[in-house]
Amino acid sequence: MSMDLRAMGQRAVAAGRKLGLMPTEARNAVLAGIARRLESEAPALAEANEVDLAQGRAEGLAPALLDRLALTPKRLAGMVAGCRDVAALPDPLGEEFDVRRLPNGMRLARRRVPLGVLGVIYESRPNVTIDISALCIKTGNGAILRGGKESLRSNLALARLIRDACAEAGAPEDAIQLIESTDRALVPQLLAMDDVIDLVVKEHATMPVVYGGIGVCHLYVDRTADLARSVPVIHNAKTQAPSVCNALDTVLVHREIAEAFLPLMTENLVESGVQVLADEACWAMLERAGLAEHELVGRAEADDFGREFLALVLSVKVVAGLDEALAHIAQYSTGHSDGILTNDYAQAARFLNEVNSAAVYVNASTRFTDGGQFGLGAEVAISTQKLHARGPMGLRELTTYKWVVEGDYTVRA
Amino acid sequence: MSMDLRAMGQRAVAAGRKLGLMPTEARNAVLAGIARRLESEAPALAEANEVDLAQGRAEGLAPALLDRLALTPKRLAGMVAGCRDVAALPDPLGEEFDVRRLPNGMRLARRRVPLGVLGVIYESRPNVTIDISALCIKTGNGAILRGGKESLRSNLALARLIRDACAEAGAPEDAIQLIESTDRALVPQLLAMDDVIDLVVKEHATMPVVYGGIGVCHLYVDRTADLARSVPVIHNAKTQAPSVCNALDTVLVHREIAEAFLPLMTENLVESGVQVLADEACWAMLERAGLAEHELVGRAEADDFGREFLALVLSVKVVAGLDEALAHIAQYSTGHSDGILTNDYAQAARFLNEVNSAAVYVNASTRFTDGGQFGLGAEVAISTQKLHARGPMGLRELTTYKWVVEGDYTVRA
Repeated sequence: MSMDLRAMGQRAVAAGRKLGLMPTEARNAVLAGIARRLESEAPALAEANEVDLAQGRAEGLAPALLDRLALTPKRLAGMVAGCRDVAALPDPLGEEFDVRRLPNGMRLARRRVPLGVLGVIYESRPNVTIDISALCIKTGNGAILRGGKESLRSNLALARLIRDACAEAGAPEDAIQLIESTDRALVPQLLAMDDVIDLVVKEHATMPVVYGGIGVCHLYVDRTADLARSVPVIHNAKTQAPSVCNALDTVLVHREIAEAFLPLMTENLVESGVQVLADEACWAMLERAGLAEHELVGRAEADDFGREFLALVLSVKVVAGLDEALAHIAQYSTGHSDGILTNDYAQAARFLNEVNSAAVYVNASTRFTDGGQFGLGAEVAISTQKLHARGPMGLRELTTYKWVVEGDYTVRA
Repeated sequence: MSMDLRAMGQRAVAAGRKLGLMPTEARNAVLAGIARRLESEAPALAEANEVDLAQGRAEGLAPALLDRLALTPKRLAGMVAGCRDVAALPDPLGEEFDVRRLPNGMRLARRRVPLGVLGVIYESRPNVTIDISALCIKTGNGAILRGGKESLRSNLALARLIRDACAEAGAPEDAIQLIESTDRALVPQLLAMDDVIDLVVKEHATMPVVYGGIGVCHLYVDRTADLARSVPVIHNAKTQAPSVCNALDTVLVHREIAEAFLPLMTENLVESGVQVLADEACWAMLERAGLAEHELVGRAEADDFGREFLALVLSVKVVAGLDEALAHIAQYSTGHSDGILTNDYAQAARFLNEVNSAAVYVNASTRFTDGGQFGLGAEVAISTQKLHARGPMGLRELTTYKWVVEGDYTVRA
């Protein structure tokens, strides 16, 4: 069963990623489909809900729980309206804020992206299944739902309906998955799956924690990069402060320019005392350039990729192109700072869009991921989590907000 | 020692609260004082740091750690500049955003307030002690710092300097406290103190969790409230959906209007089947009004305050004024939704400013704390934590952001 839960999580990761890249209209179409099906399948839903209610009454469930469990026509209408309301709201994905041009001429912005996969643990109310699914679909997030055992039949019917609506609109069916077992042992298993779940929403409290610190940082040198100008960027990212988390660890080089670029880069780095660990293809090129003999040039082992060196050491690898570079970064990056050196607009846009790190760069050193450099004044940490704050945490990230409501003896209708 | 750590935390809570209510200038004056003292006390700081460095070398610390540990003149100058930069930045506290008027005429805004108390666990670099302290002081947060044992002498000197700067500027000295013991057992103790610490910043990862759900909600009826119009607001907050988290649990009544108001309110509530649990003073007044005999009127036990009823039950208490109401709410509220009914502008402003709940209300029912009612379309949870999202979590709260940086082969100077 533990294997199954992990497999569910992995399918949710893949499905969420696909969903998040779909256009607004496609995600809204799923919501419209769910609303339509809630109406057309109302009799079957009522039947499933009646089985839950009958069992709940037989087991002596508290009246408040039975009330929350009931899928009345009014609640069903509310769920339908909820889906349509969410579809009508502006799409938050892709929104950019805090956009500015820094004194050094760099353009800087925060761009809104999905959280990833949510694990949601909740009780009784089957309308929560629809509310959460609608929000997750709109925001391009996958979800693993764990409803109460008292509402299992209702939730199963709703989850099937959501899958059907996804399939009909061409969205991944695995985006929203319901845990069909009511085994209590699954909850701690779900909570431990921090490699596939980005956020758990549940009902019991302990202290929140922000994580930061580890940065395995990459720069990808594209076929179209200005080679002479790329060398000092790599030099800066590696040598300006080698012991800190935003220092460069791995360079990926497009194979079409590797033969020309690697000797340039390597000569420059070894001059500053940087040890260059080359993969097999790089090694052959450096040998042809007469640099393999240099005492600071070595062969990269498998574990030299995905390694935070915190020292004057750099691993380097030849890749076939952007796809291989993105796959390498997805596998080895710690989500801190990664960049591309390129003169190709489409490649830059794809890199910025698809690399999911706290800071993503085009034609700049990874050393800029820093509260002071980003104009925050200072930083309390560089967050590598996605919640609350990402990247450098400055003043604003040390605050929260409250909702302030002023009325005129206003009551809820 | 565990008692000591808890006492430190409680002092930090009180000091942070005081700091957060000080004007911008006062908090900036502390930062100016720290900067000045870093310069004037440079020789003593260098001496303390040299003791740490000598011990580190003797114990064979890694060169990267020794490098991070060194408090060089250049780093000291950076720390001074950092304090002055943070002082010069705009004050984030009090900023309001997402300000709007809802269709029902209510004004709604998010207001930025301090997080509370941070626990910070870090290694080696003594400059972190100053950076974090400066940010916390500017944002009105308390902090408990736990530096590495290798930098203890340096950190002790810096912590003393920060205390002196606080005292000189009239700020609470306990706002920033350093744990002076290097006992490793203190770290898990610190992590367990979730009643006094709002956020831990540290270096190892597990999955973040958002908490929500429990709402012990209060309405305070001020001396100047429109009594006739207050009754339907309380009725709505209690009866419109008694089983949910934003339903009203306790009414606090100003003693000057209690004799007139309590019978009005009680008659209205018992008519709708609400059980009214009165404290001693209320009971006496209801008795005089001939309402104590009613089967739905009872005496409140001590544990009827701070209780989430989730049913047609309400506890009611007479208070001497706003101060006692604020103290009661600080003690018993779960930080979900609390409000004041008043016609006094200054009392309303103080309530909004000093009650630290996810949603604070003037002259409105607590039932509005809801994603749909707040115009978010729907909600995934009502967060009662302070991190990432507070109150109703809608679309935007299901997203994160990344820092997008575009340069022209830009390097860090």
